[in-house]
Amino acid sequence: MTDTRIAVGIVGASGYTGAELTRLLLGHGGIDIRVLTADRKAGQPMDTVFPHLAMAGLPDLVALDRVDWSGIDVAFCCLPHGTTQEVVAGLPDHLKVVDLSADFRLADPEVYARWYGHEHRAPHLQPEAVYGLTELAREAIAGARLVACPGCYPTSAQLPLVPLLEAGLIEADDIIIDSKSGVSGAGRALREGLLFTEVSEGFHAYGIAAHRHAPEIEQGLTRAAGRPVTVNFTPHLVPMNRGILSTIYVRLAAGAGADDLRAHLAGHYAGEPFVQVLPDGTAPATRHVRGSNHCLIGVFADRLEGRAIVLAAIDNLVKGASGQAVQNMNLMTGLPETTGLEQAPLFP
Amino acid sequence: MTDTRIAVGIVGASGYTGAELTRLLLGHGGIDIRVLTADRKAGQPMDTVFPHLAMAGLPDLVALDRVDWSGIDVAFCCLPHGTTQEVVAGLPDHLKVVDLSADFRLADPEVYARWYGHEHRAPHLQPEAVYGLTELAREAIAGARLVACPGCYPTSAQLPLVPLLEAGLIEADDIIIDSKSGVSGAGRALREGLLFTEVSEGFHAYGIAAHRHAPEIEQGLTRAAGRPVTVNFTPHLVPMNRGILSTIYVRLAAGAGADDLRAHLAGHYAGEPFVQVLPDGTAPATRHVRGSNHCLIGVFADRLEGRAIVLAAIDNLVKGASGQAVQNMNLMTGLPETTGLEQAPLFP
Amino acid sequence: MTDTRIAVGIVGASGYTGAELTRLLLGHGGIDIRVLTADRKAGQPMDTVFPHLAMAGLPDLVALDRVDWSGIDVAFCCLPHGTTQEVVAGLPDHLKVVDLSADFRLADPEVYARWYGHEHRAPHLQPEAVYGLTELAREAIAGARLVACPGCYPTSAQLPLVPLLEAGLIEADDIIIDSKSGVSGAGRALREGLLFTEVSEGFHAYGIAAHRHAPEIEQGLTRAAGRPVTVNFTPHLVPMNRGILSTIYVRLAAGAGADDLRAHLAGHYAGEPFVQVLPDGTAPATRHVRGSNHCLIGVFADRLEGRAIVLAAIDNLVKGASGQAVQNMNLMTGLPETTGLEQAPLFP
Amino acid sequence: MTDTRIAVGIVGASGYTGAELTRLLLGHGGIDIRVLTADRKAGQPMDTVFPHLAMAGLPDLVALDRVDWSGIDVAFCCLPHGTTQEVVAGLPDHLKVVDLSADFRLADPEVYARWYGHEHRAPHLQPEAVYGLTELAREAIAGARLVACPGCYPTSAQLPLVPLLEAGLIEADDIIIDSKSGVSGAGRALREGLLFTEVSEGFHAYGIAAHRHAPEIEQGLTRAAGRPVTVNFTPHLVPMNRGILSTIYVRLAAGAGADDLRAHLAGHYAGEPFVQVLPDGTAPATRHVRGSNHCLIGVFADRLEGRAIVLAAIDNLVKGASGQAVQNMNLMTGLPETTGLEQAPLFP
Repeated sequence: MTDTRIAVGIVGASGYTGAELTRLLLGHGGIDIRVLTADRKAGQPMDTVFPHLAMAGLPDLVALDRVDWSGIDVAFCCLPHGTTQEVVAGLPDHLKVVDLSADFRLADPEVYARWYGHEHRAPHLQPEAVYGLTELAREAIAGARLVACPGCYPTSAQLPLVPLLEAGLIEADDIIIDSKSGVSGAGRALREGLLFTEVSEGFHAYGIAAHRHAPEIEQGLTRAAGRPVTVNFTPHLVPMNRGILSTIYVRLAAGAGADDLRAHLAGHYAGEPFVQVLPDGTAPATRHVRGSNHCLIGVFADRLEGRAIVLAAIDNLVKGASGQAVQNMNLMTGLPETTGLEQAPLFP
Repeated sequence: MTDTRIAVGIVGASGYTGAELTRLLLGHGGIDIRVLTADRKAGQPMDTVFPHLAMAGLPDLVALDRVDWSGIDVAFCCLPHGTTQEVVAGLPDHLKVVDLSADFRLADPEVYARWYGHEHRAPHLQPEAVYGLTELAREAIAGARLVACPGCYPTSAQLPLVPLLEAGLIEADDIIIDSKSGVSGAGRALREGLLFTEVSEGFHAYGIAAHRHAPEIEQGLTRAAGRPVTVNFTPHLVPMNRGILSTIYVRLAAGAGADDLRAHLAGHYAGEPFVQVLPDGTAPATRHVRGSNHCLIGVFADRLEGRAIVLAAIDNLVKGASGQAVQNMNLMTGLPETTGLEQAPLFP
Repeated sequence: MTDTRIAVGIVGASGYTGAELTRLLLGHGGIDIRVLTADRKAGQPMDTVFPHLAMAGLPDLVALDRVDWSGIDVAFCCLPHGTTQEVVAGLPDHLKVVDLSADFRLADPEVYARWYGHEHRAPHLQPEAVYGLTELAREAIAGARLVACPGCYPTSAQLPLVPLLEAGLIEADDIIIDSKSGVSGAGRALREGLLFTEVSEGFHAYGIAAHRHAPEIEQGLTRAAGRPVTVNFTPHLVPMNRGILSTIYVRLAAGAGADDLRAHLAGHYAGEPFVQVLPDGTAPATRHVRGSNHCLIGVFADRLEGRAIVLAAIDNLVKGASGQAVQNMNLMTGLPETTGLEQAPLFP
Repeated sequence: MTDTRIAVGIVGASGYTGAELTRLLLGHGGIDIRVLTADRKAGQPMDTVFPHLAMAGLPDLVALDRVDWSGIDVAFCCLPHGTTQEVVAGLPDHLKVVDLSADFRLADPEVYARWYGHEHRAPHLQPEAVYGLTELAREAIAGARLVACPGCYPTSAQLPLVPLLEAGLIEADDIIIDSKSGVSGAGRALREGLLFTEVSEGFHAYGIAAHRHAPEIEQGLTRAAGRPVTVNFTPHLVPMNRGILSTIYVRLAAGAGADDLRAHLAGHYAGEPFVQVLPDGTAPATRHVRGSNHCLIGVFADRLEGRAIVLAAIDNLVKGASGQAVQNMNLMTGLPETTGLEQAPLFP
């Protein structure tokens, strides 16, 4: 009997997006996890690094340069920003690549250089990379060899904003995106500011007017609006593990009201398995999407005339990272899009 | 085409064990959730009560006395302790019943009356009820019509202790069970002590030498030891949603050491899909079983001569409640025992 | 020897603001706590209701109608909104009253009636009531008999915004106040949404475009701007006990920049013991004011042209409630304003 | 006018015990903080390292070897274990030294070497060092030049156990100390296991039968019992910032009952400002001592015959570290023992 499962390698499997990807792929059914790399932890069993993945029979972690990619169908890259571009450039051509880093998200090399502080190291691949916001680019993703999965914040911002801009229901300037994220969005890096004692029982903003997800959001909104868009994007750190809530303040196009926005989004996402537009008066909460690939969207009238409030909630590690990566892989390999992503959220 | 799925009703679906059961059954594949009852919330859609379960197409909540049980195969009872016995007595005979309350756990009606403050109201059913600690009673569960699922704390205590007592590796007296639980174990009741502000950033013991799970544990250990066992059981409340860690202090039988205990448990549970005995030096952590049906067990030598330390971690809502209930239902209906329970833990 | 301490009664001492007031007054030095009322818990010792206040020798809780107010100098009212107005109307005239509820905050009875759903029941007292945002109304507070302490959110919003509007540095329309609060702001009420399991590991907005602190903020900003001001005010619930961070998006007046705003605020609050304007690039965090009467303010340039971002952090129970109440009482009784409020924040 | 305040230096001020000491000393009234050292952060203002201490006018951090100790009365040492002994040996003789590390806690150099893996580097100072468990060694502390403040866990264990052993009310063997601590006990070190995402929503034991606080506890209990005592000490990590609860399982001496233990402790600690023995049926909770120097003790009868359960709660950073250090300094300098430590706990 032939194993018809798709053979997968995860590059950079010792971080949280790698672990979450592994969790989702273990429940996928059509996947064989064949390679897990982590250069600094090479040689260790995966369940030493992530004990919650014990009992799954995973391969040990190996160094990237020891991997034999023949026989592997898909590589997921979960490396830190800036290190991925050269790695991807070095992978054999037969591999489909789903990249979770920021390296191939910005189509304009000048914008990349300005925000990341160095020239892009694989510019020849950038034209090929498809920006993988699944619901808004299905066809291109299905035909892509290299997909750049969106950042967590940009996913939460673009899912509601792109359809509204395309429909001309909101103004393209004066968009304010006040986002709040759980701590796993910062990864597993050893930084003082991520210690339990520094995060719990407190709240603050960071990267104010300087976060690298701003140009990514602007790229998507610019395409949707058909003209250059600059946004306010202000991220905050919430003392919780998972979840992003973006509270977005928009100016209505002439004649439009909050109900129009809600109705348009509801129509746009009707039938979508992972995006739900909530009825008037219901606010999305991150706890209701925890562990799932869902995005909840709510729209409220503002007391400020001519404005509306749009809220979107996702799990940053799932729809904001590894879940959307699996969703994209399903499209790229011809599998049903929801495979491996059907589990309900975990609450409480 | 005939629907060969098992038709299920959940009595008391508006609490956390009901919600967790629903979550697990939605991912089961072989189940059709046909009835959800909640007397005080009758008429409400399930996703008003539990928004995380939206998008699943669940039936609305109904009052228990409005349920038509014909065509239903299995009833899960998730009612508060003390109210279940009459409800179960009133259910039609064709139903298999998986009870998550404490009502049918204590075989001795006098013990029940002493700890619960009233005579049992369905004593004729008690002889029929099988105590559903799955790994230790598979055969009886498979043949049962009424299964009493163990309490969360008793599950964490008995899984390691029963095999050790049966093998005569530990003394039956002087067992001290220091348990720590997340807050969901207390259910969704409106009590001041369960408010976020009263629980977070703090830790305390409760029900000291007076918790109703003590006689349940003693019943199981008495059977295993073949003579009356009394235990110290001291529960504590941890500022987290899910998880139980029981740290158990035992006196070794003459000639036995901690390594013998670990080896015996490892052998006893070899091949079990949900119980894992950790290697020497590795301590179980609740975060590594979060959202899963797993139980992790560790054994450590004590510096006190003649003693050992046994630790067990479970998710109180899964292996400690709804997950074990599904595991038992699988046995009772002839399904593979792990169906619906294969998902990996959620971390972080 | 005469006791020269001020005799104080706390009406409604069984809630969190009552407890926090007690904590602060115990460390004040010039205060004798003589009366603690709580109608439903009358007869109980305070340390049954708040064990952390044991060892302080506090009087037992009594019913309000049993209090002998002779000999008492100051009454703090910590009752729920809507119940205070009649209570205050019934207090003897010799008492100075510091009210922590919303009952006397809104000067316009029509605005009160519209937002609270009933006519004000002590309208004759409203003209007398001084709105107690201490730094902005010292003189009036010092001469007042009845002070209405500001709400927690309005304190965090008005401290930065009022000076900026008065100076004409920002536009009066298009002010967006995205606020995030710890759970203690909701009090000790038994509501499902305040259970630990419902709050922890999650984040959501509530009271969107409908929160009663909006008109209170607008009243203050209207006075400062000299013309009617409407604001966007969107509160969110953070899984932490204490703290408010308000992220405020403002439109700059012609010619003004973020640096001008920061410089103006720094000058305005120079020498203030409890308000600190942070240097450019430093963002306020709630954990750095925990347990203290401090307010931290930061100002950032926005990438949106003509806009700036103003952030303010307070402890909702201290500067947002009981601390500001003590600060006002100090002024009303001629004590140094900082007495009892000098303690440093508690971190971690 | 002469400044009669005591001049203080804090060695190692950039960790949590240093910050907590600073917080307490700022509210002390009789202290002038003149020196703050931190070798790796030398040159930085203290409020860069600990923003919650801004507005206090503290001196900048300096390197230890740059300190002029003339004119300084007391040095607090908040350095990591193992580095303190040489530092203290190098301090001038006129300084009184309050050491918060473990370096001078163990009187027996062989025990030190066995548990810390190297010979003690200032053995000549060990005979001089007084073990500073304040309530149990007041006289010696008052006369000491060098005080070794107890560890956080040992404080919580010895305060209840020493008087019980001295009175012969409990057996000296078979003492099981199951302790649970908040995360600040681990300090501010960058370790993966201390990240928010690794700690929150989880619970585990660590250092099982191998924690260095075990010999420290045993030293104290051996003195109290008059014969060698070995204990079980099992620490656990609680997802909270502050607090230790030790649940201690003891075997009663012949003829003694839980009520005798409670009565003896209540008598022993009668009049103590910081130790409170709770009435029968009341369990101590860490949240009721948060931020304070209090220790709450409860005693419960066990269902196991001949056993009792003793519980003690402290704030690990206050009574378990910096608060007890201030208490000791007060004794060493002839100040009232409670100065600077009178503040009530912070709840919620």
